[in-house]
Amino acid sequence: MFDELYQQLEEKISLSEKDKNCIPNFFETKFLRKKQLLLQAGEYCRTLAFVSTGALKSYTIDEKGIEHISLLAWEGWWVSDFKSFISDEKAILFIDAIEDSEILLLSKSNYEQLLIEVPSMERYFRILYQNSLVTKDRRLISSNTYTAEEKYNHLLKMYPFISQRIPQILIASYLGITTETISRIKKG
Amino acid sequence: MFDELYQQLEEKISLSEKDKNCIPNFFETKFLRKKQLLLQAGEYCRTLAFVSTGALKSYTIDEKGIEHISLLAWEGWWVSDFKSFISDEKAILFIDAIEDSEILLLSKSNYEQLLIEVPSMERYFRILYQNSLVTKDRRLISSNTYTAEEKYNHLLKMYPFISQRIPQILIASYLGITTETISRIKKG
Repeated sequence: MFDELYQQLEEKISLSEKDKNCIPNFFETKFLRKKQLLLQAGEYCRTLAFVSTGALKSYTIDEKGIEHISLLAWEGWWVSDFKSFISDEKAILFIDAIEDSEILLLSKSNYEQLLIEVPSMERYFRILYQNSLVTKDRRLISSNTYTAEEKYNHLLKMYPFISQRIPQILIASYLGITTETISRIKKG
Repeated sequence: MFDELYQQLEEKISLSEKDKNCIPNFFETKFLRKKQLLLQAGEYCRTLAFVSTGALKSYTIDEKGIEHISLLAWEGWWVSDFKSFISDEKAILFIDAIEDSEILLLSKSNYEQLLIEVPSMERYFRILYQNSLVTKDRRLISSNTYTAEEKYNHLLKMYPFISQRIPQILIASYLGITTETISRIKKG
């Protein structure tokens, strides 16, 4: 259950045996069935969720009822309404499971306690957020600069398994393009 | 020269006298005249810049030669092409001084060394990046959801001094609205 988390942590920091024994105490494990909701807009996002197995998506729903995906998160990714989690404001995102998923939940108080009791976690989250800021910038530039085909091919290059695993309609929503465009790209 | 930096750090972390004696060694001080460039697109962004006094802006220039401001940074703010700094890629941002400014420059190697030698700086940057992620989300939502008038009034509420200090044309560019719109809002 914690192997994927340890692997992700150890890509960025060193963990002692003591750290490894201590870390699980801060998390609550949860199983989500495919399509089960973790968070709804209007609620408070009280936890950061780490995906151990499976895949989740976060999204907004516009006034026409159309989903706009903001993140696709599979093994090794964190997902939350981060603004709601940090600022104690109401969430604007929905989060649900794309596949049956096993997740680890870190509450706000446990997050703060973990950072105190395992100081190397400060380093882990500093690097995680640093990378996330870079990715957000890249995604913003990409959405303004690249064609639908370039965006789709770039995503496939970064995550080769995505086309087998994530339904085309979700990939299209994530990239802000239509499924017809993806079909056209695939036909070449 | 370092008072503003210490003040910003101490809003998020505790600093010992030893830390305070050590921190200046990692920074290079620099004076920029109004309109002087710190970074051009196409160069590598080798430093994080902390604004001690004055104000800077970061921006892109589109193919029509129009500036699009991505950040207005005054005392206590950091400014960089963060993606370029972290990933060693070419910058897409220009950075210049809006006023005569005094800045503190932190190179990549000094940044990494500082995080090792002053461990509480891990906590500082973790909180800085965490807040930055929240702000970026808020700005993205704001740009899609609020009217020009709401955006302008929100900015003035957050930073009451901005209308005295930052030229209207730069505020307009930062908010993605026209100066005519600001004039109209001011007339009420």
